[in-house]
Amino acid sequence: MEEKLQRLKTLLAESADLAHAAALLEWDQQVNMPEGGTRSRSEQLSTLQRLAHERFTADEVGQLLEDLQPYAEQLDPDSMDARLLYVTGRDYKKRTKVPASLVAEFTETASRAQQVWARARANDDFAAFAPHLQRIVELRREYAALFAPYDHVYDALLDDFEPGVKTADVQAVFDALRPQQVELIKAIGERPQVDDSFLYGKFDEQRQWDFGVEVLTKVGYDWKRGRQDKSAHPFTTSFGNDDVRITTRVDTGFFNSAFFATLHEGGHALYEQGIADEFSRTPLQNAASLAFHESQSRMWENLVGRSRPFWEYFFPRLQEVFPAQFGNLSLDAFYKGINKVEPSLIRVEADEATYNLHIMLRLEIEIGLMDGSMQVKDLPEIWNTRMREYLGVVPPNDAQGVLQDVHWSGGMIGYFSTYALGNVISAQLWEKILEDIPDLDEQMRQGKFDALLAWVREKIHRHGAKYEPKDLLQRVTGSAMDPAPYMRYLKSKFGEIYGL
Amino acid sequence: MEEKLQRLKTLLAESADLAHAAALLEWDQQVNMPEGGTRSRSEQLSTLQRLAHERFTADEVGQLLEDLQPYAEQLDPDSMDARLLYVTGRDYKKRTKVPASLVAEFTETASRAQQVWARARANDDFAAFAPHLQRIVELRREYAALFAPYDHVYDALLDDFEPGVKTADVQAVFDALRPQQVELIKAIGERPQVDDSFLYGKFDEQRQWDFGVEVLTKVGYDWKRGRQDKSAHPFTTSFGNDDVRITTRVDTGFFNSAFFATLHEGGHALYEQGIADEFSRTPLQNAASLAFHESQSRMWENLVGRSRPFWEYFFPRLQEVFPAQFGNLSLDAFYKGINKVEPSLIRVEADEATYNLHIMLRLEIEIGLMDGSMQVKDLPEIWNTRMREYLGVVPPNDAQGVLQDVHWSGGMIGYFSTYALGNVISAQLWEKILEDIPDLDEQMRQGKFDALLAWVREKIHRHGAKYEPKDLLQRVTGSAMDPAPYMRYLKSKFGEIYGL
Repeated sequence: MEEKLQRLKTLLAESADLAHAAALLEWDQQVNMPEGGTRSRSEQLSTLQRLAHERFTADEVGQLLEDLQPYAEQLDPDSMDARLLYVTGRDYKKRTKVPASLVAEFTETASRAQQVWARARANDDFAAFAPHLQRIVELRREYAALFAPYDHVYDALLDDFEPGVKTADVQAVFDALRPQQVELIKAIGERPQVDDSFLYGKFDEQRQWDFGVEVLTKVGYDWKRGRQDKSAHPFTTSFGNDDVRITTRVDTGFFNSAFFATLHEGGHALYEQGIADEFSRTPLQNAASLAFHESQSRMWENLVGRSRPFWEYFFPRLQEVFPAQFGNLSLDAFYKGINKVEPSLIRVEADEATYNLHIMLRLEIEIGLMDGSMQVKDLPEIWNTRMREYLGVVPPNDAQGVLQDVHWSGGMIGYFSTYALGNVISAQLWEKILEDIPDLDEQMRQGKFDALLAWVREKIHRHGAKYEPKDLLQRVTGSAMDPAPYMRYLKSKFGEIYGL
Repeated sequence: MEEKLQRLKTLLAESADLAHAAALLEWDQQVNMPEGGTRSRSEQLSTLQRLAHERFTADEVGQLLEDLQPYAEQLDPDSMDARLLYVTGRDYKKRTKVPASLVAEFTETASRAQQVWARARANDDFAAFAPHLQRIVELRREYAALFAPYDHVYDALLDDFEPGVKTADVQAVFDALRPQQVELIKAIGERPQVDDSFLYGKFDEQRQWDFGVEVLTKVGYDWKRGRQDKSAHPFTTSFGNDDVRITTRVDTGFFNSAFFATLHEGGHALYEQGIADEFSRTPLQNAASLAFHESQSRMWENLVGRSRPFWEYFFPRLQEVFPAQFGNLSLDAFYKGINKVEPSLIRVEADEATYNLHIMLRLEIEIGLMDGSMQVKDLPEIWNTRMREYLGVVPPNDAQGVLQDVHWSGGMIGYFSTYALGNVISAQLWEKILEDIPDLDEQMRQGKFDALLAWVREKIHRHGAKYEPKDLLQRVTGSAMDPAPYMRYLKSKFGEIYGL
């Protein structure tokens, strides 16, 4: 049996090597590749991704998993090998269930739809995009049907990003949050707005970069196992826990853009750098889920990076870096400025208090499309109506409304809610962290983040994908997914800032 | 048959994709990779290279080649498909002939030997390296024996880099060159030395870089299909003809270092960028041989970049870039300085007149080791004796003598002579180029390189590996490999500089 397990690990290692190589090709494409290299690169990527998939879904893998079943049952259920066999079996079943013809049609449809979407958004022409979205929805329904019977047709889509999490789980969380968040931002809207004009101006690119590097170093990003580069859209990627890279973009006219993206991606990277060595080249060398990944990026970006104690340490330093811009500004004014709440049309620019509402709108539409209660043609109207209802703003056109995100055109239905769940989980973890490190605020005031990093390493990072997200959350916090901590956090923070 | 050919091309394309992906991983390792990433990277590289090899040497490839034999015989022998089948069949036969066990032992032995060599060179301890070199020689003999019967035991090693070229071909060229080059440098040594002290000093890194970019652009390097980065050792790599990258290193104390490395690698890159699109993802998307590759890098570095007409155009510009260093210098003095001939101990620092002698010494030793006429233990003495004989200098120790190059420790026996053959071929091509473009000197004086580039594109680059090197040379110059043009070039150039 040990021999069969070894053979399985060898096959999985090859698949992981191919996937990591593909990730490097993608990183290079965003960061370095000369524009002429597109054709060769897409051929190479397609070959690597196909071979990685073929290796993971090979009949031999299925046979080994079957043969190892009795062995797995004798193992300590909490051991690495037991969990590896479970997670591999789960993913193998999912990936082998989908006929190659469906994968091919889906890939082709999505690839075409993305091109159409880009034009449609540029031309503010939802009607041009509608039939392509319609076809994507149909193919996603076909995909979901492969996993019948299910509690909800949307479950299979969600499961790809949040293994074991059900549509009903997410709806329960969102149903609890929605009215409270809507109420909160209405209350904020009735208070005098805070000033954030000092965040706009002229910020030297190199100084922004260097300050980001300084903060990343301080929070514990390991430069020996990573690097930062520039790309059009910030992202994190890893080729093993010994090479985890982040990218950012620098807006010389707006301070927040690079800084908070850097800290956000840094949070993702700390997670990947923290996964246990022993999980290398296996399916356990991953985050528990996208929501857990986002919980880490949001924690460093918001709960740490938009907190008062954090800036009590870093603001004097920032004043040295940008004396003309911040030299005469008070810490209090800066803190309020970077936490300004203002309902806006565009998700990626949303603040902490409004962000989840953008997500809820999208989840409702995704579920409506999947269960047939909404029609593609009605989406612009549905979008605009709910934007008014949740955020009090209405897009002047579809380009700034229903057409703003790339996700659906690429076939990614089921992904959005992980952003909001990440916020929810981050606040649950934070309450637990404050229990275990009661003087964390004081530590942050002194620029000390090692206890915090050690905590998330020990409780979250090192486990990689060993535990499914619901299980991991229960182990760490003793609780299921719970929106209360996030609402407590929002009310306390913004209540103080806006004097509610 | 068309179907079988298509299937063969698909398998070759996958193998090429994997090899190009591996090349990107290697490039990244030299240019970007954080130091901690070594373990994962070497696992990924090993997987990609093994899969590329497995795909190329698959039984199915052999069967397809056999099935397609009658079809190939009906094709125009000069057509792409005919040549593709020939070249693929040739490489397939070579690569499948070698037992996996020999490959594994060779790789392991070489990997260990490289580590031992690095220490041995640092400690000037040839005796420590000797047994490892001995084992490498034995394994190279085992390899050569697989290709018996042969004219010479060294043929198989040479053939890996120069398909179809025999040991006797190289010996004939070198035997003709040696006495003439020895005589030339003796004559030069009796003349007053030229001054090159102005090439040493303080040269701003960014200015050197920018000047290199300016020259690369002018000679026709296509930045849309390439880029330049820094690495410890300059190299060129390609992931298809649409993404051909070069690296350089900058020595702020010595002008020549970065500039001529940049032009040398640029020459390699122009070759790779010029290979026909239709050869993409096939074994034809390669240089004809290493010597041909080197003929291109040497042509741009030396025949162009160390020529008087080239600097008649660029020197005034260089004076603007480095006014303090070159502002008061005459073009004549600069030209002589960058062409200073001085026998030295180290191959990589050798000038045009002495370079080939370093290579000849190495070839003689390689042949001696392979045919048993030399023993590893005697190498230091052989080395030093011949250095005195050919170059008039004797290394003070083995670190600067027989231990100076990494090649043998990595198992690369058969490689060195391609450097010297590249010089020889470059001069043969140059005489032909001057016949076809009689006013080339005048064009270079005006900074025009498009006719020259078009010539090498048309005659050499676009053909990739379609023709074997002897055949290609014959087609282009109407002649076999011939040392006379190179000697004419050396005598004319250095005769003028040193007033012989």
